[in-house]
Order: sequence, then structure tokens, then C-alpha cells
Amino acid sequence: MNAVTTPLSPEELSLIDRYWRAANYLSVGQIYLMDNPLLREPLRPEHIKPRLLGHWGTTPGLNFIYAHLNRVIKARDLNIVYMCGPGHGGPGMVANTYLEGTYSEIYPNISETTEGMQKLFKQFSFPGGIPSHAAPETPGSIHEGGELGYALVHAFGAAFDNPDLIVACVVGDGEAETGPLAASWHSNKFLNPARDGAVLPILHLNGYKIANPTILGRESDEDLRNLFSGYGYEPFFVEGHEPAAMHQAMVGTFDQVFDRIRSIQRKAREKTAPEGMPRWPMIILRSPKGWTGPKEVDGKKVEGFWRAHQVPVANCRGDESHRKILEDWMRSYDPDDLFDRSGQLKAELRALAPQGERRMGANPHANGGLLRKELLVPSIRDYAIEIGERGSKQVQSTEILGHYLRDTLKLNDVKQNFRIFGPDETESNRLGSVFDVTDRVWMESIEDYDLHLAPDGRVMEVLSEHLCQGWLEGYLLTGRHGLFSCYEAFIHIVDSMFNQHAKWLKVSRELPWRKPISSLNYLLTSHVWRQDHNGFSHQDPGFVDLVANKRADVVRIYLPPDANTLLWVGDHCLQTYDRINVIVAGKQPESQWLKMDEAIAHCKAGVGIWDWASYEDGTTAPDIVMACAGDVPTMETLAAVMLLHEAIPDLKIRTVNVVDLLALQDPKQHPHGLEHQTFDEIFTTDRPVVFAYHGYPYLIHRLTYRRTNHDNIHVRGFIEEGTTTTPFDMTVLNELDRYHLALEAISRVPGLAEKVPDVIDGLKAKLVKHHDYVRRHGEDMPEISDWRWKR
Amino acid sequence: MNAVTTPLSPEELSLIDRYWRAANYLSVGQIYLMDNPLLREPLRPEHIKPRLLGHWGTTPGLNFIYAHLNRVIKARDLNIVYMCGPGHGGPGMVANTYLEGTYSEIYPNISETTEGMQKLFKQFSFPGGIPSHAAPETPGSIHEGGELGYALVHAFGAAFDNPDLIVACVVGDGEAETGPLAASWHSNKFLNPARDGAVLPILHLNGYKIANPTILGRESDEDLRNLFSGYGYEPFFVEGHEPAAMHQAMVGTFDQVFDRIRSIQRKAREKTAPEGMPRWPMIILRSPKGWTGPKEVDGKKVEGFWRAHQVPVANCRGDESHRKILEDWMRSYDPDDLFDRSGQLKAELRALAPQGERRMGANPHANGGLLRKELLVPSIRDYAIEIGERGSKQVQSTEILGHYLRDTLKLNDVKQNFRIFGPDETESNRLGSVFDVTDRVWMESIEDYDLHLAPDGRVMEVLSEHLCQGWLEGYLLTGRHGLFSCYEAFIHIVDSMFNQHAKWLKVSRELPWRKPISSLNYLLTSHVWRQDHNGFSHQDPGFVDLVANKRADVVRIYLPPDANTLLWVGDHCLQTYDRINVIVAGKQPESQWLKMDEAIAHCKAGVGIWDWASYEDGTTAPDIVMACAGDVPTMETLAAVMLLHEAIPDLKIRTVNVVDLLALQDPKQHPHGLEHQTFDEIFTTDRPVVFAYHGYPYLIHRLTYRRTNHDNIHVRGFIEEGTTTTPFDMTVLNELDRYHLALEAISRVPGLAEKVPDVIDGLKAKLVKHHDYVRRHGEDMPEISDWRWKR
Repeated sequence: MNAVTTPLSPEELSLIDRYWRAANYLSVGQIYLMDNPLLREPLRPEHIKPRLLGHWGTTPGLNFIYAHLNRVIKARDLNIVYMCGPGHGGPGMVANTYLEGTYSEIYPNISETTEGMQKLFKQFSFPGGIPSHAAPETPGSIHEGGELGYALVHAFGAAFDNPDLIVACVVGDGEAETGPLAASWHSNKFLNPARDGAVLPILHLNGYKIANPTILGRESDEDLRNLFSGYGYEPFFVEGHEPAAMHQAMVGTFDQVFDRIRSIQRKAREKTAPEGMPRWPMIILRSPKGWTGPKEVDGKKVEGFWRAHQVPVANCRGDESHRKILEDWMRSYDPDDLFDRSGQLKAELRALAPQGERRMGANPHANGGLLRKELLVPSIRDYAIEIGERGSKQVQSTEILGHYLRDTLKLNDVKQNFRIFGPDETESNRLGSVFDVTDRVWMESIEDYDLHLAPDGRVMEVLSEHLCQGWLEGYLLTGRHGLFSCYEAFIHIVDSMFNQHAKWLKVSRELPWRKPISSLNYLLTSHVWRQDHNGFSHQDPGFVDLVANKRADVVRIYLPPDANTLLWVGDHCLQTYDRINVIVAGKQPESQWLKMDEAIAHCKAGVGIWDWASYEDGTTAPDIVMACAGDVPTMETLAAVMLLHEAIPDLKIRTVNVVDLLALQDPKQHPHGLEHQTFDEIFTTDRPVVFAYHGYPYLIHRLTYRRTNHDNIHVRGFIEEGTTTTPFDMTVLNELDRYHLALEAISRVPGLAEKVPDVIDGLKAKLVKHHDYVRRHGEDMPEISDWRWKR
Repeated sequence: MNAVTTPLSPEELSLIDRYWRAANYLSVGQIYLMDNPLLREPLRPEHIKPRLLGHWGTTPGLNFIYAHLNRVIKARDLNIVYMCGPGHGGPGMVANTYLEGTYSEIYPNISETTEGMQKLFKQFSFPGGIPSHAAPETPGSIHEGGELGYALVHAFGAAFDNPDLIVACVVGDGEAETGPLAASWHSNKFLNPARDGAVLPILHLNGYKIANPTILGRESDEDLRNLFSGYGYEPFFVEGHEPAAMHQAMVGTFDQVFDRIRSIQRKAREKTAPEGMPRWPMIILRSPKGWTGPKEVDGKKVEGFWRAHQVPVANCRGDESHRKILEDWMRSYDPDDLFDRSGQLKAELRALAPQGERRMGANPHANGGLLRKELLVPSIRDYAIEIGERGSKQVQSTEILGHYLRDTLKLNDVKQNFRIFGPDETESNRLGSVFDVTDRVWMESIEDYDLHLAPDGRVMEVLSEHLCQGWLEGYLLTGRHGLFSCYEAFIHIVDSMFNQHAKWLKVSRELPWRKPISSLNYLLTSHVWRQDHNGFSHQDPGFVDLVANKRADVVRIYLPPDANTLLWVGDHCLQTYDRINVIVAGKQPESQWLKMDEAIAHCKAGVGIWDWASYEDGTTAPDIVMACAGDVPTMETLAAVMLLHEAIPDLKIRTVNVVDLLALQDPKQHPHGLEHQTFDEIFTTDRPVVFAYHGYPYLIHRLTYRRTNHDNIHVRGFIEEGTTTTPFDMTVLNELDRYHLALEAISRVPGLAEKVPDVIDGLKAKLVKHHDYVRRHGEDMPEISDWRWKR
């Protein structure tokens, strides 16, 4: 602990301690009581909830921090958001927002009366009530306290481009053991004090997880000081358990720390600081787990041990002695000293909370939709490529999107509310033209031969998908816009973060007071079919399978086959809100199929027949439908259609392309789902369909199983065969190439195979020829590389 | 750098430098050449591969470390495995194992001749050849160099219970930015020097990723020293670019570091060290990216910059000046000074490599199947529970498995080759009886009130699923056994690690020299239906969807409905090899259905009709099949069956339970798939099936879409509706409860609904009653809690 100082007068000390006790009282009440909220009667079994669910252990520490943040907000008129890492501290966040009045403003039925308090208590972890963690339902929260590890990265995401904001981020010592959190400390290398807000990490060491000590909790102060100095911070320690001393220490430390933050920002903004990364302060708070709760229960240590993690004293309904412990514990906070007869917090305590939007539960940054400004976007027609003869040009589609993104960055430069995130791959993913107008954010030293590094860049690159995702989430949740471009295979690294964000959106959409935020947009490129440098470990198209499990109102999946469709999709996604959009598109040179007008119409429909690639007579149904989704499958499908038509001119072939994957689904299941009649018109009700799909074939079956013609849909996709090989050989290994597709089509048209044995032999011979050629020369046969659509 | 010393004589210096040059030469050759391997002719276009794929940047540093490890292995007779974090250094790992002779022993067609070298070069990143990363194909590797972040955690997993082994783990500075790697440094808190081997982390700072500097590469030595001291290590620096000085520095540092390791181990084993965690050494090696490669190409900086990351000089076929750069570069290593006329490494250099199994490419720990000993397991019958009347007992099934695991730990205590991994949840997941015979591993301080913490525990708990998974992978890959128990929702955190391990297994199985390793076993408990404390953020059953995407020969998914079936499944999984087994089972008290003999027969079949829960007359097909998979769905299905039978006694109901989920799949797709005839006998070919499934309903459709009766299968499962509520209310929210199931069954039997309007009204009334009751009382109606199967 720092030198003992007593910045608070006895009166101030008493007030802040009472405020803290009020929060602690309300926290315990939520966990235990369904009636008799102010203990105006002796505690009886029926006052206690039948199922005791909640987490006490971390809560008093969170309440302690909240009370002290209130003090500095008022004293310095600060704009602070409270990021609560130990999500298990839900009762504390609810208690504090209730005390400051925010809760009752948002939920008027939970009023600041004894009756309101009874409802506040009962609803917690109760059917039809609120969850036990900080959640979308919790005012002032942009961080779900479920899965752990993302508090700090959310905090930085919130602080970027918010120069006046300070994000006070409490990191639990359990959470601190996770990988994403361990990497998040390095976010200080990406925070520019001249342009961004500040993050104040408060590492809360209460020493225990569910049933174990914590790694950092058992480290010496010296090791901790080294560790966080090594991460680039200036650590401040606040340690102890005696409330009065702890209040004084916290006030003294907060005063130092907020002075430090102000000084760093002032120097950076006045340009009086040396270049490079400042050493931001952070706080290490050691306080007992379950602080102020029962010291022992049934002779076993509780306070200061992991037994305080959830419900410190269990059977309070059935066991009189346990009930006595609970009652004594709650009365130790002296509720009559805190709340008046009507149940309202006493006026002198109320006066400790900030006013209006300075209250952390009412800070608009924690309800980012309130602050969200529309993204300015250029017209996609300005970037449209002239395709000439269909399939004649080889274009890197993501490069074209890069031009659009470059100008989007430019258009929003004044607003400073759009960033691009990715793990060191912006250039590799062919989005490099964004560097015509901006740089990569970099706060460490910059050498004269470095390229496109600057403290004020708008592209965020770090070799951690967790950080990219978490920063972007924090950025979106505070009302801004962004795009995450990533290798397709490695987006699985953030599967669980995606899950949690989808859950957040699902619940937020059900809360009218939460305003819509911009969608989380993924551009998955360097996809499974074009891992020329990397091979099998980089080949996994399964992320969309996970996405398709989520609520239909939250997710969208797009597979644009060429540059103009990618432009439409990218532009569309960036302007949506409260969704997660996944775009899968290749970065390698590829054939171009649709003119801009056609691309717009096709993307709006989601699924369409490509007449120019079909051989139908318009009178009867086709013999075969060749369907495709994804750029490489589209290419191979078109080649197969040409092979089939050249070999069997009277075969009636329909070619269908799918851009909006979830349009395949039943409209009852997904809002983009095609009406059954439309689906049947496109895919027929009885003709064989050969469907070449970008990813694992099952997904197409799963999406179409309610469709009339489902039993005739034969899907080819990635069947987990991969290595470092040529692009075409990858499709052959997975039997998604033009020859396999054509052979499959022939086998599916009744009676056809018997009629065209020579065609079949010819196609099989091509496969043999390919096999020999590629293994000898290490590149694709000229007839593959030079193939062009001819019609 | 440490004080300049010259431990090597000029002759020794020359030898080790030549060895390094040989490895560098072979690395460049692999990236570029398909012919003329020893440059015995001038380099011509046709000698160069048409597609240049590979990564040079990290390789010379990896080769440098390899050469120096060879030296200490020989000098000290050490048992060292090389864990290559920068997977992009594939060419280096291949080059070194070729130089030491391992490669040609495993792949005799790649002989130590000029012809062999030509094949070695050509096969690299070539169709039909080997991948560009360290991979299963690479001798001496147990670590795929694809997705980054897991080198260090694999290293620790390999070192546990291997007291004589030293794992030299090279961590790239790109990889070091990932979350899992940042957390992995804390693995030192779990390594016991008395019992385990050592890990020597070598942080290789070459300063750049694909297109960016690295965070750690740009940190000052002081910050790095603080950071790694804070993590608990003693850092040693080796920095520079001048080869002679660097060789001397590396030798001096290695000598200190290996002395330090020996000293730590000796003191711990002789019990002369103070208790607690030793301060293990680690090395920070700063060397230029692309060291010894072209300094500039086309006037642009290459060596010591990110342009050296992949192929430093491109288009060597078409551009003569580029070809000249390549030729000069390769000749700078002076191949004639390194290889004799026949193409073999010269004898004096060969003598630098260790012999036999001391060669890192031949170390059996890197082919763990060679060392794997069968796990000793007790008889599951000894743990079988007496079920009495079916459904009459409420048992925590995982607790029963815990007894079996306790004794498995005991049986293998002598072998020290079985550990249990999990994020702080062993006790919470009801496996606590393992603490009767062992403890949690803990190397930090232990207080007198701590429970079940010890340096020699066999349960590994850390609040990081990444560390649990990575340690277990490392442990399995070196020939041992283990189990990972995890909350179901948060296993998604390691989706991508699962993917990579599945890929490793898939490829390893195709390599005859790689011997089978034990399966990776997941016990997913605290599942979606029983998140009583936690709510929506903890509810996600989608991991198995990801698993089902993988190769059928690698994955298994089990949903045992009660304790005896869980015993069989757990016992079975622990004895399999080269697979990933996922077991989903609840930890809460639940009804018990099958006697041990029945459980064994049922699990072996995978899917079965439960006659005792069916109402059939044996002559005709049933009116309805009520199928279920998972403990909660089984419970609700049986209750629905009873409701239906009581209300409609002449309804012919068949009850089917699925334990082995992939048995639903076509036998052509999965080896466990039921034959179609068997499937049809169980599920009928035309009767309605109401299928109550544990997870997302789509998976059942996907698995059964090739089955005759597929169109009549109506699946209910988790539809992403969740919150903190009662167990039964969770099923109601997702319409998987007994009432919804019974209503669905009635609606699916042709003509039935019209006949039983009162039954339908009665069931609907129950749902209304439930809704009111649970929101009023906060617990389930007594008729739900007290429900018992009666027959």
C-alpha cells in the first residue's frame, strides 16, 4: 500500500462508507430475499428465496470501487464508464445503479420505495426476472459477465476515438488467468492519448476463484509490479481489509491516478510529451473475497476464501442458525441508517452519486446506440468493375472492396468513428489501398523504414483475433462502426466471443431502452480453397455453421462470387445494425461474372437463376440444376456447365447462384428465407440439383431440409481433405472440381449415364491427367489456368 | 547481451557455423528449387519451382537454435525435444532432421544423396509433397505450425511427468501476441521440478510479423526483463546479428541456462530447495528476420524487415536479376564446403549431431505413441448404481463417474501418466472424489486453510480453457492419458484448438511411423439445461456441431442419459486412441433408468428401443416414436410418454434413446453409423418420430437426412431461449418439455388431434399453470420436481 494518508475527513469517510454499505446491503438482499427487504420484521423462512442463486464473493469489492468512482466523477466532473469484468458481480452493478436512481428511471416498476426494493430483490436470478451477471439488462453495462476474459479489451474498444471518456475496467483475478485477458494488457500499445480516451485497469485480487486460489492473487507485490511494468503500466497498490483505511487509501490512490491520466492526456494533446507510448497508471486492489460477509459458517472459513464465491451461507430457509447468520450479516450494514422510512436512500447519501449522464448507469457510452451516427458511405457504383466478356477478367475482389473502404475511411475521417481490425493481414487480404488514406495504429517506436505505422492510424492490426474481436465489440457497443477482416480458418479462435456477442444482441433487441448499434461485420478471406502458402492447418470453413445456429434475427451469411457482388454486400452490411454479418470472399485473382446492375439485383434477391449460364428451352423444367455458393464453387460450377453443354448439347441445364446463404432457409426460420413458391420455382420441385458449396456440405442440407425438393439436392463441399497444393487440386481433392461436378450431374439425370459413356470416360480421363500434371509440374494444367467462360 | 565471452575455440566456432549454414542452405533450397540442388550447374529458370511458397523469415533463427541445442545435447547427454512455435519455420525443421539423418530413416526415398536432396527440395510445398509448416509429417514435431499460440502450452504438457525431458520451446514474437500464448507463460506455476521435466522458453524476437513490427520486438530490454520476471522467470538475453559473436553468446548463455535447470531440478529432487516455485530461466533471442538472406531486393529492405517473412525474392524464374540474387544468396553458404560429392553432409559436420534417439528428430517423446502405456482402469461394475424402481432415484451422474476416476488415478499412480484438466470446476462438476487420492497442482504458496492443493497433485485447474486444452494435448502427444472436464458453453473457447488437434490426428493416422496416441476426452457438464446459477451466457450446446464437421474416423459424440451409461462411456473413451471423444452429461441430481447390464448393452448398440418405456403390441408398427438424446431430453421424453399413455391408453408408443450420436449417421459417413436396416427397424420407415435432442435441433436433421424416415422426424432442442430460471422452465422456454413433446406427438399422429381435444386442452393448461407457478414461487411445481416414472 502507498504511504498512509487520510485525504477524507471523518464526515466524508463516514458518508462514503455508508454508501458502500448500502450497496452491499442491496447486493445481499438480491441474492437472498423475496420479501421483508428492509428487515423491518424479523427474518422468517418465507422471506427467503427457495433457490439461492448468485455470487457474493466479488461484489463488495465492486461496490467499493463504484462508490469511489462516484466520488472522483463528482470531484472532477469526469465522464466514466464502469466495465465490470467479474460478471458474477451482477448484484453489485444492479445495486449501484439502483442507488444512483438510474435503475428506477429505466425500470419504473422497480421504484425507490420499500415496495420497489422488494421487487428489486425478488427479480434477481428469479424466473421471469433478471440474470445473475452484469448483462444487457443492467444499466451502464456494455459487458456481459458470463464468459470471462474480455473486460479489458472491451474497455479499450470503448476508449478508442472517445477522447473525453475514461473507462474504469475492473479485471477479476480469475478472469486474469484467461488467454484473451493476458493479451489484452498489450492494448496500451494501441491507445493514443491525443486522440483516444483513457482506460484505467483495476486488477481486483480477491485471491480466489470457485474453488482455488488465483495465480495472480498468490504472487508477490514485487512480481506483480514487474509484470505490469513489463506490460508498460505504472502499477499502484491498494491493499487491506479494514474499511476506513481502505477508503483513505483508495481516495489517495485515485487522486494520484486520475492526476496521472490528466497529465498524460494534456501533454499528448499539447504535444509536450515525448513521442511514444505513455506509461498509463493501473491499480492493483487486494481485498478479501466476500469482504464484510460472514467470517465463518459451520466452523468453516468463508470471508477471504473461495467459500464466499457464490452464496456464503446456504440453507437460510430451512436452517435457523444459517438464517440467523444471514440476518446478522444484513443488519451489520444497519439498513435504517441508510434508507429512510419509505425505503429511499437517505438524502445525504444520495448526494454522493453524480447527476444525470454522469451517473455510470446512465452514461450514454454504455448504450452506444444513443450516440451512434450513420456511417457515410460512397456509392458502390463508383467502384464497380467493368467485367467485359463474362469470366474474361481475373480480379482480386477484396482489392476492389479495399477501394470502397479507403473512401469510406476518408468520408468518415471527420467523425472518427470507423476502424478496420485484423490480425496483421489487411495488406495480405488485398485491402492495402486503405493505406492510401490512413495507417496502422502504432504507439511503440517507429523506424524510418517502417511503412504505414502511425499513432493516429485507423487500421488496428495485432496477431490476436481475440483482441481484434474484443476491440471491435467495445467500439460498436459504444456507437461506432467497424469491420474485422480475418483468415477464414482462424476466425474459429473467436467462436465463443461471437457466441457471447450474438447473445448480447439477442437480449438487447428485446429491451426498448437499448438503442440499436452497428452490426459486427466479418470479412473472411484467405479462405479454405486458396491456402496456397499454408495448407491443411489453415483450411476450415466451419465458422458459418456456428453462425447459423444463432437466432435468425441476429445473423446473416453472404458468399459473394465476384467483385461487384462483394461491393454490394460489403456496403449493405456496413449500414445494418444489431446484426452479425459474415462475408466470405476470396482475395486471389478470380473470374468476374456480374455487371453492377446485375450484381445489385442478384444480391437483393439473395438467390437467382443465372440465365446467361443456363441452357433451358423455357418450356419445360430443366434436366438438372447446377447450384453454387461461394467464389470457387461458382467458378467450378460454371466450368462444369460448359463441359456438360459442350459434351451433351441437348441437356437442359439451369445454373443457380446463392449469395445470401440464409435465403435457403424456411422463411419461418429466417427473415431472409425465400418463400417456398419462389424456392420451388428456382430449384424445381423434382429435378436433381447438384449444389457446389464453399463449406461443409451438411449446412446446405440443414438449411434446405424443409424444402420440397430437398431429397434431390446433392451437395459437394469441403470434406476435410487439404494440404499445400494448387488451387485447382484442392477442389479435386474434395471432389468439388468441374469434372466431379459434371460427373455427378450426369449420374443424377435419370437415364443419362447410359447414353453418354464416352463423356464420362472423357471427364474421368481429365482427372487422371490433372493428377499427373500437377504432381509433375507443381502447377495447374494450362487448360485450368486459362479457362474462360465462352458464350 | 551478456558479457562477451568466447567459449568456443575457432575450430568449434567454424564447425557450428558451417552446420548452421548447411541448415540455412537446405531451407532456402526447399523454398526455391526443384532441381540442381547443390548448384553444381549455374541456376536456370527450370530449376526453380513455378510457385514459390514457404516462409524464410523465421527459419535462420530456428536453425541457429537447433544447431546450438545439438551442441548441448551432445556435451551434456540431454534428452531434448524441440517445440517449434513459429510454424512457418517448416523448412528449418525439415532441414535439420535431414542433416541429422532422421529424415532419411523415416522417408528412405529422401536419401542423403544429391538425388535425395533434389527430392527433399521439390516435395516442399508441392502438390503431393509436404506442407510448408512443421506438421505431423515433420520428424520430431508434436506441434503443428499453423494456427499460432500453443507452442508453450504444448511444451509444458509434454514436460509434465517426464522428469528427464527438457522441452526447448521457441516462441515467435508474432505468436507471443496471441491470448493463449500470453497466458501460457503462467504454466510455470504448475510445473513441479521434482516430478516434471523442464521447459526452456526461447522467445525469438525477430521483430516482424507478415507486414508489421511485433509488440514485444519493439519493447525495450528493461520492459521485457520486467515482464518475464513478473511472470516468474529469469530472463537471459542473446542479441545481435554478427554470426561469430552470436554463436559465442548462445553457447555462453546455453551453458548458464542448462546449469540453472540442472541446479533447480537437483535441489528439488534432493529436497534442498525452499518450497515454492523456482525461477526457471528463459531466453530472449533477438536476431534479424531473414538473417543471412538478401539484404535488399529491388532497392527495398529485406533482411531485418517483414519483407523477409515469406519468399524474400520473388519471380526467380522469370526475372534474371532476381535469380542472380537467389543464386548468390545460396552460394554464400558455400555448399561445397558443407556437402560432399555424393551430396551427403560432410563427416566433420555430421559428427556435430547427436546420435540415435538423442537426435531431436528421433526423440520418442515427439512420437508419443511409441511410449504410450495402456491406462489401467477398474471394472465399471464396481461403481454401478442400483437403480431400484426406474426413475425413482435422483443421482448426480458425474459424481458416480468421479468414483471411477478416483480409482483410475490410484491405479495409475505408479505410472504417473494420467491427469485430469479443467478450469477450476472439478469439484463444481461433482468429480470431487478424485481429491480423496490426489490434489490440485499448485506451486505457489499454500496456506494452512487451503484445500487439496499440492505440488504433486494430478488435477490441473486454471481458469483458462486454452491452457487446459493445450496442456492435455501436449500430454497426450507425448504418450500419456487425460480427461478435460469443462462447462459445455465455454468449450467453444477452444474450438479452434480442437480443430487443429483433429487435423493433427487425421494426418498422423495416415503416417505409419506415427504411433497411435490416447484420445482427447472431453466431459462437457454444467450443460445448457442446468445453468441454474448462470443463465443465458452459459447456455450453448453447439460444440458438438463443430465436432460433427470433422473426419468421421477421428470424432465420437456420446450423450449418456444416466450414471451407468456415463460409466460405460467414460470407461470406453479413456481406452480409445487417436480420437476425440465428446461426452455430454449433467452434474445435477437426475433420474436413473438403466441397470448396469442394460447400460452396457445399450451403449454398445449406441441406439436402442427402451421396451420398458414403450407401449407397443408387438404386431404392428407403433403410432409414434418418441426418441431422445441427452439426460434432460430423456427425462422429458419419458414424462411425455407417461402423459400420453395415461391420457390415450391405446396409443402405441415406442421410446428410443440415443447414446452414441453419430450412430444416427449413414454408415458410409461414420463407422458407428447404424446399418440402414437397423435404423429403419428402430425408427420405422413411415411413422412420425418426435425427437427430443440436447442441442441445436438441426444436427439431428443433418445426421439423419439420408435415412428412409427422415421426413417424419420432428426435432426439438435448444432454440436459443435462455435465462436464469428453474430447470423445468428452461425446457418450457425451448418447447422441449413433456407437455410440448406430448402435444407435438398428438399433432403428428394422423387423425389423433381431432379425437382427443380434452387431452390437448389439459396439456396446454399445464403449461399455463407452470408459467404462473414458477413466476410466483421461483421453483418448479411439485408435480414436476416429484415426478417419477411409474410402471
